[in-house]
Amino acid sequence: MTDNIKLADYLFTRLRQLGVGSVFGVPGDYNLRLLDYVVPAGLHWVGNCNELNAAYAADGYSRINGLSALITTFGVGELSAANGIACAYAERSPVIHIVGTPPRPLRTSRALMHHTFADGEYGRFAAMATHITAAQTALADTLTAPDKIDWILQQALIHSRPVYLELPDDMPGVLVSAANLKTPIRIPEVPSPDHEEQVLARIVDRVYSAKQPVILVDGESRALGILDQLDTLIKTTKWPTWTSVYGKGLVNESYDNVYGLYAAGFGDEPSKEYFESADLILTFGPHYSDTNSYFGTTIPKDAAAITFKDSTIQIESDVYQDMSPARVLADLLKKIENDSRVVRQGGPPKQEVTTSDIKDTDVVAQNNFYRLINPIFGEGDIILTETGTAAYGGRFFKLPPKARTFGAVTWLSIGFMLPCTLGAALAKRELNQASGASNQTTLIIGDGSIQMTAQEISVMIKEKLNILIIIINNEGYTIERVIHGRKQAYNDVPFWRHTQALNYFGADEEHVAQNTFTARTCGELREVLKNERVHSGQGVRILEVMMDREDVEGPLLYLLNKQKAEEKEGK
Amino acid sequence: MTDNIKLADYLFTRLRQLGVGSVFGVPGDYNLRLLDYVVPAGLHWVGNCNELNAAYAADGYSRINGLSALITTFGVGELSAANGIACAYAERSPVIHIVGTPPRPLRTSRALMHHTFADGEYGRFAAMATHITAAQTALADTLTAPDKIDWILQQALIHSRPVYLELPDDMPGVLVSAANLKTPIRIPEVPSPDHEEQVLARIVDRVYSAKQPVILVDGESRALGILDQLDTLIKTTKWPTWTSVYGKGLVNESYDNVYGLYAAGFGDEPSKEYFESADLILTFGPHYSDTNSYFGTTIPKDAAAITFKDSTIQIESDVYQDMSPARVLADLLKKIENDSRVVRQGGPPKQEVTTSDIKDTDVVAQNNFYRLINPIFGEGDIILTETGTAAYGGRFFKLPPKARTFGAVTWLSIGFMLPCTLGAALAKRELNQASGASNQTTLIIGDGSIQMTAQEISVMIKEKLNILIIIINNEGYTIERVIHGRKQAYNDVPFWRHTQALNYFGADEEHVAQNTFTARTCGELREVLKNERVHSGQGVRILEVMMDREDVEGPLLYLLNKQKAEEKEGK
Repeated sequence: MTDNIKLADYLFTRLRQLGVGSVFGVPGDYNLRLLDYVVPAGLHWVGNCNELNAAYAADGYSRINGLSALITTFGVGELSAANGIACAYAERSPVIHIVGTPPRPLRTSRALMHHTFADGEYGRFAAMATHITAAQTALADTLTAPDKIDWILQQALIHSRPVYLELPDDMPGVLVSAANLKTPIRIPEVPSPDHEEQVLARIVDRVYSAKQPVILVDGESRALGILDQLDTLIKTTKWPTWTSVYGKGLVNESYDNVYGLYAAGFGDEPSKEYFESADLILTFGPHYSDTNSYFGTTIPKDAAAITFKDSTIQIESDVYQDMSPARVLADLLKKIENDSRVVRQGGPPKQEVTTSDIKDTDVVAQNNFYRLINPIFGEGDIILTETGTAAYGGRFFKLPPKARTFGAVTWLSIGFMLPCTLGAALAKRELNQASGASNQTTLIIGDGSIQMTAQEISVMIKEKLNILIIIINNEGYTIERVIHGRKQAYNDVPFWRHTQALNYFGADEEHVAQNTFTARTCGELREVLKNERVHSGQGVRILEVMMDREDVEGPLLYLLNKQKAEEKEGK
Repeated sequence: MTDNIKLADYLFTRLRQLGVGSVFGVPGDYNLRLLDYVVPAGLHWVGNCNELNAAYAADGYSRINGLSALITTFGVGELSAANGIACAYAERSPVIHIVGTPPRPLRTSRALMHHTFADGEYGRFAAMATHITAAQTALADTLTAPDKIDWILQQALIHSRPVYLELPDDMPGVLVSAANLKTPIRIPEVPSPDHEEQVLARIVDRVYSAKQPVILVDGESRALGILDQLDTLIKTTKWPTWTSVYGKGLVNESYDNVYGLYAAGFGDEPSKEYFESADLILTFGPHYSDTNSYFGTTIPKDAAAITFKDSTIQIESDVYQDMSPARVLADLLKKIENDSRVVRQGGPPKQEVTTSDIKDTDVVAQNNFYRLINPIFGEGDIILTETGTAAYGGRFFKLPPKARTFGAVTWLSIGFMLPCTLGAALAKRELNQASGASNQTTLIIGDGSIQMTAQEISVMIKEKLNILIIIINNEGYTIERVIHGRKQAYNDVPFWRHTQALNYFGADEEHVAQNTFTARTCGELREVLKNERVHSGQGVRILEVMMDREDVEGPLLYLLNKQKAEEKEGK
């Protein structure tokens, strides 16, 4: 029979079919044989510095590419990746976590192998994975392996969350049937429930009758696979459109009717008034964590909201189950596209952003920095703002078309954004290959966060990615300082010489000298930003900007002032 | 009532009572209020660069000190630490993992908080911890909190493994009863089972009648709390004594009858012959993983062995349950101490170590490096050899009295040893405070492993610890190369400039210049080792030595040659 294929080739063929171009991970005793097949399968192998970084990078790659793969080794490797997998779960990034496990005979005989607790138990780590992945499977024989692989990959796509695949070290080379490979893996359509027509009719009715309708795009819209439809909806209706923190970058901010982030009482007053008096809020992909919803204040009231989420649509307080939001949205668009009766122009005045008030002698600070760097972002670029002051400041960037941005949504694991930047930049480069386009990826990160995962800069260098890393050096965990313990030493971090990063992490000596920058004043920052190497350079560049330890804005300033008031009261 | 105390003070008082001097961890939203109490309680706070490093450091501290504490935050922090906690479980290090969790009202109301999956579930991460900790508890009210704390601390001591303690963010300041604090926490004595006398009699009989008895000290002897008794036994009997990889450093290698590591067919032939023909092998704290037992070849045969482990003693094939090995050993010593009839001198010839054959023009290599550096170790020093070639080479060091060493036992998570070094050095400095003694800690680590956790060097610098880091630069994961894929690119790592480490990680400029060294030849290495700054310096020093990509010895050489043979056969 010619219809057989080696197991590893089967798996990697499936990954290629689903658009995966690179695989992240770290080699380990129980995955080396699997790794032999990665490059021959036409996949690029990204060896990361450690597994947490690899998981973060796979997450970033998936957010841009739609799917990613991570290979770790049993126990030591997979557990190091756990927090990264949990991050992908919380923020809906489909990552195939492939764990190379000890060969089957060792497991069957309960051998006391290394990377176990030397007690014959082999099921512990898979049991742990059930809590942070959407589905799990363990390959154990050649008969069932292909179906198991197909099932687990489909689960990742359906849930848009990580899944867990155990692959014993004695299996990469075994033959399995290749028959399935002729049928692509797809998310199946759900049947139309009886109430679908009624739901659509209610929505259409509300859309036509609305006097002051708005659109709210939250981040789970990505997982719903409706971004193109949303673009059509926004263009068709011309309704004022906002995003959440999580949804930012999923809509085209260059349209006149797109306002960027909705921040309720933490944003501008006219927007808040308009949003709160809307009689219809079409809401997509809601994700109502405290951090993504400004403590719940941005959540639309039931009376105005029609909400599209995974398998439900909610109209006022009626929750309709077993829906396909994508199909309902498509049906809605068929009815209203090119129908000018749905158009509602107007909306609150847009906030103008200017930098003319910023003097060259001003020190770089939260209230000027983001405005000054915003112009360097180009169409299709990626901007990542790490949890901390960067994520708060980066929320109000005006994004060019097709630009994507990641901020602090819900998981908020500091250290995440740096490896995520590696993965996102790599995915973008691969997606650009057909068009020949080139993009910049910019990471803005604090001096506390960067200490968590800094070594991954060396992989960015090795991969020759065009990444600008802007380090906000404010001497510690400023975000924690404003939450609690603003003068406590536990919020300090060790002193690092960030301008030595490229040197330590192995960039060419000439590159190091020409691509490391610092700025303390706005004049210096303006000068640096004019440098072509900074805004459109090659390879990794470092820009360190100094800010005050307690320099914060928005909700963080609110928390800081609250803490200061409590100090005065002697609490 | 004056008999009340704040919860955090209760916990930290208990830790102080049990000899904990420093606490490791990373601040996070849900533990900041707890951190307020650390320093006022007289504990030193070590803020680590990330949670995995913190867990590794806590493990190292515990191996020297006997107990340690780690504080992380809910979800993001604790999951990052998971692999470090698992390491402590596998190799029996009691670490109190304290997780700051969201305030109780948020949990009760299933609020969609950050650091959760925004689905109202708060039990996931605690469920994961059940697989990698010996006991778990969640503080939830003031009535039961003190007993729960006492119980969890006792469990850590009993099992000599990590435990998991959830402490809600609204509880550090609540009052609890201080009554328990008057009673120290101890490991309770187990009752003597009926068969204890018979067991002791059988052992005594065998001890007197043995013609060629030997002692084997494995690593779980530390968890059994019998190290002082073992020292007496070794001195009393003068029997030839070996250790496992895990047991190395637990016995005084300066005694004439102590031979160091027993490696069966991977060690010297006379030792193997002597060990295998012994008619009695008193075996303590066995831990028979493949890596700690040279694929099982060092495990004594049942016919000769009497084995002391947790709660059992095995004589030939008879396993006696419910024993206290420490009590039986104490009773044995009472009977045989000062009784010359148990003395058996002799044993195989000791292998002499010489460096006179090493030429100054020789390149530094596995077969000369360990012999050349061995003389710099002093009494009470700590030597850590990271998984990889370093761990294999370091097994044959001749250790000075009271020196401790950690090598590759079972968990073998690369990256572990560097933060472990931080924790071990800190514990040693604290233990030395009373005597005023000073010790060096030396880490030997490969260029692959160091990339996993390198940032912790900055914490070593901040803590002003006297640590020599020797980096074996052999251009990648040499240990993985010899296992599989010796020419595969996945075993490469990014190029780093290790001599820039102290500079990047913030050491004083003068210190950087005077404490960074390299050696390519044995002559250079000899010269460097003469430098007082290297062998007895202050602060962190870096020594980079270059070795060949495939330079290995012992079992690793065996694996390499096997792979080369397979390549020839075209496998």
